[in-house]
Amino acid sequence: MKVIRYKHDLDFTYALGATLVFELLKTRPNSIRRIFIKPTLNKETPEIQKLLGLAKDCKIDIYESEKPFNVLSPKDNCFVIAEFTKTTSALEKDKSNIVLVNPSDAGNIGTIVRTAVGLGYQNIAVIGPAVDVYDPKSIRATMGAIFHANVQYFANIEEFLMLFPNHNRYSFMLKGAHDFDKTGVKAPFSLIFGNEASGLPDNYAKLATSVKIPQTSEIDSFSLPIAASIAMYECKDIK
Amino acid sequence: MKVIRYKHDLDFTYALGATLVFELLKTRPNSIRRIFIKPTLNKETPEIQKLLGLAKDCKIDIYESEKPFNVLSPKDNCFVIAEFTKTTSALEKDKSNIVLVNPSDAGNIGTIVRTAVGLGYQNIAVIGPAVDVYDPKSIRATMGAIFHANVQYFANIEEFLMLFPNHNRYSFMLKGAHDFDKTGVKAPFSLIFGNEASGLPDNYAKLATSVKIPQTSEIDSFSLPIAASIAMYECKDIK
Repeated sequence: MKVIRYKHDLDFTYALGATLVFELLKTRPNSIRRIFIKPTLNKETPEIQKLLGLAKDCKIDIYESEKPFNVLSPKDNCFVIAEFTKTTSALEKDKSNIVLVNPSDAGNIGTIVRTAVGLGYQNIAVIGPAVDVYDPKSIRATMGAIFHANVQYFANIEEFLMLFPNHNRYSFMLKGAHDFDKTGVKAPFSLIFGNEASGLPDNYAKLATSVKIPQTSEIDSFSLPIAASIAMYECKDIK
Repeated sequence: MKVIRYKHDLDFTYALGATLVFELLKTRPNSIRRIFIKPTLNKETPEIQKLLGLAKDCKIDIYESEKPFNVLSPKDNCFVIAEFTKTTSALEKDKSNIVLVNPSDAGNIGTIVRTAVGLGYQNIAVIGPAVDVYDPKSIRATMGAIFHANVQYFANIEEFLMLFPNHNRYSFMLKGAHDFDKTGVKAPFSLIFGNEASGLPDNYAKLATSVKIPQTSEIDSFSLPIAASIAMYECKDIK
């Protein structure tokens, strides 16, 4: 049995752990190529019974072997892995969306996708160069929320703007001209966030209404996932 | 020169990196016992000049040596370390506060302290057993915000309640009885959050008004730092 360590240019990736695999089975069963289970997995628990039952109903091949776990998740306490095809899902045209410009951390993009889906945002644009949301680490950080979201990559912001020329755009910048909580945000909108360390380039102040989340002078900034979450929460009822 | 790896029961700890050390020099210079600098540190940058000047003004001993970095920060790109005395700071009596029950992750408690200080909350109670906010990893995750906050540990929630019997208390629970954004929160208040994996024990629904942050059914929950940040943001103007 050949198992390949994840690489960005593969057209498939991995969901590590029973919780993620179960979520994938419920939402995107057709994308699953095969499922691996560890020989030491306790198959008698109700959760695992349900998972294996679902996999059988979907006619997915299940392989019991230690090897995929050594290759894909050597350090983890992981007993189930699904190998699945990446499905690219375009952003919905009329819906508000979240735009992440050059995010670099798998955990952060995962947390943002999780929070977005929890607050009812299902459309997330990622402007490259950026971390790979299909990296198993990112997928795990979404806790399965990725399977409910449309995440679309763009090579640069211009490509995004061509598709969404009429969305109301808000660039989150430390020197933003307006306090975000006093900005009369109108839907459909795009909330735009920069890289963890460097933020948004200065020209984003011209591409969009530049805004800031009010903060005390005692911190330099909020972290990227916190800033994005606060902004998404602020607008959750008008999206 | 003797340098001891950090342990919970020491009465001192370490700030790793120039940014943190600079913040410490500005806020709590008297707590600093000594400063270590790496022989390869470039001392000519304006930031480092300022840092070293401040340290001299405060009459703090500076040691140039590789050894402390090997002991305290072997993998890191870190050139300045301050060894400083832990200062226990009691919570302010009349101020709203944030209560973290059994938090277990250094990065999470750090992020919450950073966000709290950024939103103007300076009083944070931690109910044990819990991660050590003075662990250098936690301190670093606060990005220096810890030096602007009062963080007080309590052995159990009863000890906390004895000190703050009249605060309006809100327990954040997935099964909370009220939507938090529709709860008429009144100051001074305590916002209470549970452990990352297990949340708050059921009895917290009786110790406080149990509330939940509205979310879609597509996620299990928000992460602890995200939930705490959203809640603190929601109440920032009434604290």
